[in-house]
Amino acid sequence: MGKNLTKRSEDYSKWYNELVIKADLAENSGVRGCMVIKPYGFAIWEKMQAGLDKMFKDTGHENAYFPLFIPKSYLSKEASHVEGFAKECAVVTHYRLKNAEDGSGIVVDENAKLEEELIVRPTSETIIWDTYRKWIQSYRDLPLLINQWANVVRWEMRTRLFLRTAEFLWQEGHTAHATRQEAIEEAELILNLYAEFAEKHMAVPVIKGTKTESERFAGAVETYCIEALMQDGKALQAGTSHFLGQNFARAFDVKFATKEGQQEHVWATSWGVSTRLMGALIMTHSDDNGLVLPPVLAPIQVVIVPIYKGLEVLEAIDEKVAPLVEALRDKGISVKYDNRDTHKPGFKFNEYELKGVPVRLAVGPRDLENGTYEVARRDTLQKEVVAADAVVEHISGLLDDIQQNLYNKAAAFRDDRITRVDDYEEFKNILENKGGFIAAHWDGTAETEERIKEETKATIRCIPLNAAKEEGSCILTGKPSQRRVLFAKAY
Amino acid sequence: MGKNLTKRSEDYSKWYNELVIKADLAENSGVRGCMVIKPYGFAIWEKMQAGLDKMFKDTGHENAYFPLFIPKSYLSKEASHVEGFAKECAVVTHYRLKNAEDGSGIVVDENAKLEEELIVRPTSETIIWDTYRKWIQSYRDLPLLINQWANVVRWEMRTRLFLRTAEFLWQEGHTAHATRQEAIEEAELILNLYAEFAEKHMAVPVIKGTKTESERFAGAVETYCIEALMQDGKALQAGTSHFLGQNFARAFDVKFATKEGQQEHVWATSWGVSTRLMGALIMTHSDDNGLVLPPVLAPIQVVIVPIYKGLEVLEAIDEKVAPLVEALRDKGISVKYDNRDTHKPGFKFNEYELKGVPVRLAVGPRDLENGTYEVARRDTLQKEVVAADAVVEHISGLLDDIQQNLYNKAAAFRDDRITRVDDYEEFKNILENKGGFIAAHWDGTAETEERIKEETKATIRCIPLNAAKEEGSCILTGKPSQRRVLFAKAY
Repeated sequence: MGKNLTKRSEDYSKWYNELVIKADLAENSGVRGCMVIKPYGFAIWEKMQAGLDKMFKDTGHENAYFPLFIPKSYLSKEASHVEGFAKECAVVTHYRLKNAEDGSGIVVDENAKLEEELIVRPTSETIIWDTYRKWIQSYRDLPLLINQWANVVRWEMRTRLFLRTAEFLWQEGHTAHATRQEAIEEAELILNLYAEFAEKHMAVPVIKGTKTESERFAGAVETYCIEALMQDGKALQAGTSHFLGQNFARAFDVKFATKEGQQEHVWATSWGVSTRLMGALIMTHSDDNGLVLPPVLAPIQVVIVPIYKGLEVLEAIDEKVAPLVEALRDKGISVKYDNRDTHKPGFKFNEYELKGVPVRLAVGPRDLENGTYEVARRDTLQKEVVAADAVVEHISGLLDDIQQNLYNKAAAFRDDRITRVDDYEEFKNILENKGGFIAAHWDGTAETEERIKEETKATIRCIPLNAAKEEGSCILTGKPSQRRVLFAKAY
Repeated sequence: MGKNLTKRSEDYSKWYNELVIKADLAENSGVRGCMVIKPYGFAIWEKMQAGLDKMFKDTGHENAYFPLFIPKSYLSKEASHVEGFAKECAVVTHYRLKNAEDGSGIVVDENAKLEEELIVRPTSETIIWDTYRKWIQSYRDLPLLINQWANVVRWEMRTRLFLRTAEFLWQEGHTAHATRQEAIEEAELILNLYAEFAEKHMAVPVIKGTKTESERFAGAVETYCIEALMQDGKALQAGTSHFLGQNFARAFDVKFATKEGQQEHVWATSWGVSTRLMGALIMTHSDDNGLVLPPVLAPIQVVIVPIYKGLEVLEAIDEKVAPLVEALRDKGISVKYDNRDTHKPGFKFNEYELKGVPVRLAVGPRDLENGTYEVARRDTLQKEVVAADAVVEHISGLLDDIQQNLYNKAAAFRDDRITRVDDYEEFKNILENKGGFIAAHWDGTAETEERIKEETKATIRCIPLNAAKEEGSCILTGKPSQRRVLFAKAY
């Protein structure tokens, strides 16, 4: 009856891989590095999409759709951009297959070679800015606030379900503005939106910051990010928002007439979150019994399991449960009544625990007699008996409690793992034995950043936005520094 | 001030192309055959998606996501399937670009050639049935009712916005069943669902039928379809639902244990509608003034335009309109109050007419005095003056009226263009001069079908499901026939 899930303490990485498979979230496909997102996993992603999409629209953004393919020449137009993506991209070179002349099967038709190779989009700045050139003439056309939900491909060599896959699903926002200041404000607005989504919907606490130059998006002037901490003490970048300056407007010659009639290059942002968020969600809350889902994103928020011998009792339970199901649905709570006669209650309990359903109700003959339900919460595994006439109200409050509790627990865990360190040996010691974020001084050079990475595998996750000015000396070189940055090993 | 739209009677095809561009629905991109779906067009597509998605879920289907890429060997496993798609597919052969050694720019890295080419999915039967083999062991795993929203690529040589593009967006359902009968019922359920969507949401009347063998989906045993009629008398296939028999289960070795413990191949269906529906929607209802949208799919259902000189009057109008906007939104009606001071009312009237907003309200000083609104409907261009305190109720009814009127008008047009013909010369005559569907007898052979197509460009759109048995003789060969089929020129 057990779930045969490796314990986190034994092998966190193995636990994660097993959990993703066993909870029916995703699996590897026959195509190298590409995953299949299974219905249960996809239902969670749909809830993420709906939540984010509403937030984008509430802040004035519209959805659109741009081509999957990017001509090679487009990608090459922004120098640092092509540098960042050329090494790992899928290239379409032909447009036809044919039967081999020697009868050996289906082969590429060499007579159907493309004049120019097409890249499967790794991100869409280039194709979008090529389009924006046609859309933007005057300041009246700005700002342009557009988002796209799409699949993208980056030819990663080492892949892991949700965390790093060759193809992944994401949204990418691409906005155009008349001024530098407005574009920066947009990038920051989205950063805050992402942080709010992570904390309120996913119950995942995040730190907002900017990336160092070497960790910036290829083509960005500034990359803002939100960083979360997983239970194994490793950080995970959960979303990025880029201020692109005028780089893409210059590369694609996108100018606008100002109010004063002058021609100026347009200012840009781009920003995205992806199915990687699924990895963050899973790793932040789940335990050795399986998935733990925050109620806001749970496809099934409440499951009801009847406990009975004999179909007569089941019928009585069916009758008792029917109005409860209706009452919960009326409150907008998604509920499943699992009265399958093919599986035992213990099997069902296990299954819903594994799948992270936030609240489980059990109802047996004694409950029928007493007018009660047994209510179990997934996050703490606590059970209590609740009177039937109070159960709707109880569940409603319980779902809020669970959402808040998951956030608080994750925040306490994370806060406990932000260590201020001023000595390089201690730095290495904390990194190995405790993990988490290390707040340390850094001299601001890429050389130091690179050496620390080589020696410890820790990278600078971000320069926190809320970091106070503080005189100090670099953890590695002893050179002067004005603020602490956050180091961590990361996914 | 005019819309400079070519008249339908002058050049229907040109009218369509211009309308799609001018109404901000879509445009061609820099990538051959791939379109950009602009925000206004995408908002309509989102409403289509939401409507269909709800219908799929209400009938027990779940969403999932499968890889974009299909290994060449997968495509080859079902013989007629590969035959149907190999000639027009995008082939990924490499996974890296590099700087050319002669400094001439970015080139494909020949050291990064894939061992096996990947096809950008033209449809996903093969990758999905390769996955289903792992998911299906027993009759308890069936039925499997899965849908995917995705982009697909078919390397079409002659493309037109929405109607035929190299990349398009669609949904593809892929279901697995224990019996032949159940799979057929699923294919028919979806056919009816598509017809209901077309008629109730899009206000597009459709004829349900089956395809002839030569028009069947590559790999299907039976293809069901819905066929609509455009204003130029040409038919448009709006959706297809395929009974696939055991073809893909055999090709991918997907068997299940029956209740009796025997191993049998699984029965399958697949079904899809695409952004092509946008083309059907546009061509069914729109007129020489621009787009005409059915209220159910209109991103903006009601637009309110103030008519004023001087900001004082505008302020009074603003004040009057604010509670109306709120009252309409409370009723779930999407409304836009366009009080931009940068554009004149006439410009706005034109713009919303062009964009097909179903109801337009105008309000000027006299309306302020009289407590009225001028209400114009887009479908008939009729105007009337309505008392302010009755306007919410009025609009609510009017939206229903418009939806119904659009359907009725399209149905009358279509019904008027179904002609029963028993003589081949008359067949050609009707086809050239009246267009529409021709109900004629056919001897059931692919040869006759092909000859008629060559001689007249008409294809058999479908064998209508509701066609009565009727003895007759083939329009071309005079051979005996038991029922009439529908011929038409088609998109």
